[in-house]
Amino acid sequence: MTQTYTVADYLLDRLAQIGIRHVFGVPGDYNLQFLDHVIAHPQITWVGCANELNAAYAADGYARCKPAAALLTTFGVGELSALNGVAGSYAEYLPVIHVVGTPAQRAQRAGDLLHHSLGDGDFTHFARIAKEVSVAQANLTADNAAREIDRLIDAALLEHRPVYLMLPSDVAEAPLPAKPAPLMLRQARLSRSALQAFIAAAREKLQSARQVSLLADFLADRFGVETALDNWMQEVAIPHATLLLGKGVLDENRDGFVGTYSGGASAAATKTLIENADVVITVGVRLTDTITGGFTHHLPAEKCIDIQPFEAWVGRQRFSRIPMCAAVQALHRLTLSLASRWPLPTIGRPALPEGDGEGLDQHAFWRQIQDFLRPGDIVLAEQGTACFGAATLTLPRGSRMIVQSLWGSIGYTLPATFGVQTAEPQRRVVLLIGDGAAQLTVQELGSMLRDGLKPVIFVLNNQGYTIERAIHGPEQSYNDIARWNWTQLPTALADGRPVTALRVSQPEALRQALSEAAQGDRLAFIEVMLPKMDIPELLDTISRVIQSRNAAA
Amino acid sequence: MTQTYTVADYLLDRLAQIGIRHVFGVPGDYNLQFLDHVIAHPQITWVGCANELNAAYAADGYARCKPAAALLTTFGVGELSALNGVAGSYAEYLPVIHVVGTPAQRAQRAGDLLHHSLGDGDFTHFARIAKEVSVAQANLTADNAAREIDRLIDAALLEHRPVYLMLPSDVAEAPLPAKPAPLMLRQARLSRSALQAFIAAAREKLQSARQVSLLADFLADRFGVETALDNWMQEVAIPHATLLLGKGVLDENRDGFVGTYSGGASAAATKTLIENADVVITVGVRLTDTITGGFTHHLPAEKCIDIQPFEAWVGRQRFSRIPMCAAVQALHRLTLSLASRWPLPTIGRPALPEGDGEGLDQHAFWRQIQDFLRPGDIVLAEQGTACFGAATLTLPRGSRMIVQSLWGSIGYTLPATFGVQTAEPQRRVVLLIGDGAAQLTVQELGSMLRDGLKPVIFVLNNQGYTIERAIHGPEQSYNDIARWNWTQLPTALADGRPVTALRVSQPEALRQALSEAAQGDRLAFIEVMLPKMDIPELLDTISRVIQSRNAAA
Repeated sequence: MTQTYTVADYLLDRLAQIGIRHVFGVPGDYNLQFLDHVIAHPQITWVGCANELNAAYAADGYARCKPAAALLTTFGVGELSALNGVAGSYAEYLPVIHVVGTPAQRAQRAGDLLHHSLGDGDFTHFARIAKEVSVAQANLTADNAAREIDRLIDAALLEHRPVYLMLPSDVAEAPLPAKPAPLMLRQARLSRSALQAFIAAAREKLQSARQVSLLADFLADRFGVETALDNWMQEVAIPHATLLLGKGVLDENRDGFVGTYSGGASAAATKTLIENADVVITVGVRLTDTITGGFTHHLPAEKCIDIQPFEAWVGRQRFSRIPMCAAVQALHRLTLSLASRWPLPTIGRPALPEGDGEGLDQHAFWRQIQDFLRPGDIVLAEQGTACFGAATLTLPRGSRMIVQSLWGSIGYTLPATFGVQTAEPQRRVVLLIGDGAAQLTVQELGSMLRDGLKPVIFVLNNQGYTIERAIHGPEQSYNDIARWNWTQLPTALADGRPVTALRVSQPEALRQALSEAAQGDRLAFIEVMLPKMDIPELLDTISRVIQSRNAAA
Repeated sequence: MTQTYTVADYLLDRLAQIGIRHVFGVPGDYNLQFLDHVIAHPQITWVGCANELNAAYAADGYARCKPAAALLTTFGVGELSALNGVAGSYAEYLPVIHVVGTPAQRAQRAGDLLHHSLGDGDFTHFARIAKEVSVAQANLTADNAAREIDRLIDAALLEHRPVYLMLPSDVAEAPLPAKPAPLMLRQARLSRSALQAFIAAAREKLQSARQVSLLADFLADRFGVETALDNWMQEVAIPHATLLLGKGVLDENRDGFVGTYSGGASAAATKTLIENADVVITVGVRLTDTITGGFTHHLPAEKCIDIQPFEAWVGRQRFSRIPMCAAVQALHRLTLSLASRWPLPTIGRPALPEGDGEGLDQHAFWRQIQDFLRPGDIVLAEQGTACFGAATLTLPRGSRMIVQSLWGSIGYTLPATFGVQTAEPQRRVVLLIGDGAAQLTVQELGSMLRDGLKPVIFVLNNQGYTIERAIHGPEQSYNDIARWNWTQLPTALADGRPVTALRVSQPEALRQALSEAAQGDRLAFIEVMLPKMDIPELLDTISRVIQSRNAAA
């Protein structure tokens, strides 16, 4: 190990400075030089993953718990395998710093026909690809490294989205003169005049309102206003809800919380209390199809005050250069003085749907999961029957939920669980995933077992892609998957390490399994046998809308 | 099922017309409409894969055995997961027709915030990405579908590379007036005058030669001159070899065959017989790093006659518009009349390297594999100890080898085996893969078991990434992988179906396992325990060159 201070060391010191403690990825021959420095770094731990897509998903999960995440792949093959995961981080606003080890500068300049290239001497293809799913890109040299690394980290944190950093194998080892100076991060730009104008417009709108409601979603989490929202809803009693993508951003046990809003697919009380207000304040919301019951929301812009990361709207009037936190703080103050006009209606919290069967079905399953959850849990629910079922849960205080409803990449949550549990070793992480999804990324179970992590994993086995059966082709063979013996898998991947693997097909067996899993002394893997066409009500509604939209010319 | 003739039907009829019998992929909600037609098509079978990257690898393997392959994914998430596989097909010249089910046209025009999009209303990101790794792209409408489908199929077959076809869910169901007319495919353009000039220049060069040699590689396979080469080498006795990427293109049991050429890492006799000739004819060769011992070849352009897919060179003189088959035919005729001047030297075929140990090591393993191989086998060898070990084998007549030496994506060969065995159900398919590679894509074992396929799979367990240990960091923990119980895996994924799973760590146990696998009545999975740092000689040489090139500024 060289004692010279290098570009690799600088990059790692910067990652450590912003709170990153782990680098996820897969070794490859153009990133091994950098990896030597990762291994040697006192504050950073290398987390090898079973493949690059899984590593990207794990990094995404990590970035949902930490200020940012780092992902390391090799050139071409590795970075392209990771691309779908990085695109998800881009769509859903997660700051993942993607470091790609590339061939040495001399080989690139010469246009050598190297492995992991397209064999045409052009080393710029993949940077063009990365540009579509990252907010900043850089190709490091010894000369630009310090400046470019700082620029990219700043962009990732400010915009809360991925950046793409090409690190040639020789540049990783290039000497740098000194340890980094303190990192100067930009703040989101605030226009005082815009903020005043926004407050005036909002006051006018709110003053005449007889009933106000609030919807918060995922960007409230990403841009750090969760605590501000919590204080606000503590002091100002207005009905409030999240959408599914931001579920957990608001405390679900407070009186004003009215459930998870899903447009026309919401529980009746939730829909009424949110939509029937004269003014709806939306914080960090993007009205995408799967979280609005397929665009069946009724939230006309005229009656909304909308807070986005860097701007705010009152009706159709836009106010630029207002960071989300400033707008939230302003509205908090404003509503404090007005709230006495808005009596909090009686809110019956929506109950979990009732089942009629005796056996283990979606109804019985979610009721037991509701009881199983504890304050502080982090619940990951895969896009599918899992997340649409989980939408109806009431999260215990201090617990949170992670779903990927916008990007919706099947299989995402299993490696994301790995990233989340790595970021939060002290918290219990609960994964809810279907068999159709788990098959895509299942090898990451092995990495969790290797690292001694102990999440509780439920595989909802309904013999294939039930979310797709709900949308189209319920009896079509393409919605079936290869039949596996799921409970043998954790044992095979554990290779002698302790693991609990159980299959349950009756409510009582599930109860026993939950009690075993609750001990938390080892990774628990519970295969839950569910009827093939048993679909949570919410998914049923949404999938009918999606199907009709797919068919419409 | 609709009775109207649709765009989906047209596309499938065209695929069937060019010899495609299977579509690989993963269902997703924007491709389910098309999938109904895939399932209903009388000549085409749907092959669901465990994830999209694996599906792309499988399609790539299929395209190495059939005129082309078809890959079906959904928009965004699915296509990006497949991208690394498609890029491999682009780099290594395989015609994979990538069909992407996209949101309906109306939703795209409206810029709806749909799942599987980046949430910015822009549906063109992924088409720009695909452009980097495909030779033609189309976004189908009812009006352009017939024309664009034909254009893309033509491009894929002519250039023998991937094409990218966006099929909106509503367009799949759009009616078309009639069944397709016969498909008119372009032929590669031939300039008669260029061919005459090439022949004249080649004659002049060959007339003065005292010794001539020939190197053929992968593009000879891709552009269909394998039989022509076979006839040529049958009639004209000159020393000939392949490189590793094209291993199997030439009959390795013929007298003039001198081994697998690897630049400076070749066996001494191979190197001398190829490089010391006055004229070296190269057919379909690209001199990339891993197959030339890291550019240690000595093949100065001045003494080469180089035949590429659409052009040929004599020394530094280029002749455009000469299809490979025309150039091969011309040189065959020319050398027939001159060959009596070139006595065939005595050629001792390079023997497999001798081992000195008693236990199961790389030497003992490859000797047994050599005896195990039968005429007609298709051998897939993963980039790593597997392919560099396999490079020294002599392939039995009629057998072939598949490696991915240029793109070199780790884990490729396991799903590729699925594609190859699907394309060639009557032939024995043998996979040689390391544990470090197999973990990336292992779930595709389940698909092979589901479909009752019976390849013979050797997992060379050297506890991690030994090829990377050879290049850099032999003792570094990043080259280790999670420890699995490999032999329990096939049983878990078979769920009761017949499968042989054995672990061997002694030569005699390997012999018994091979004898069991030779029965061929079920999928055989043999874990071969090999010393962690036991590296085939060829890999040792190449990795030393790669390491020094990575470090050089």
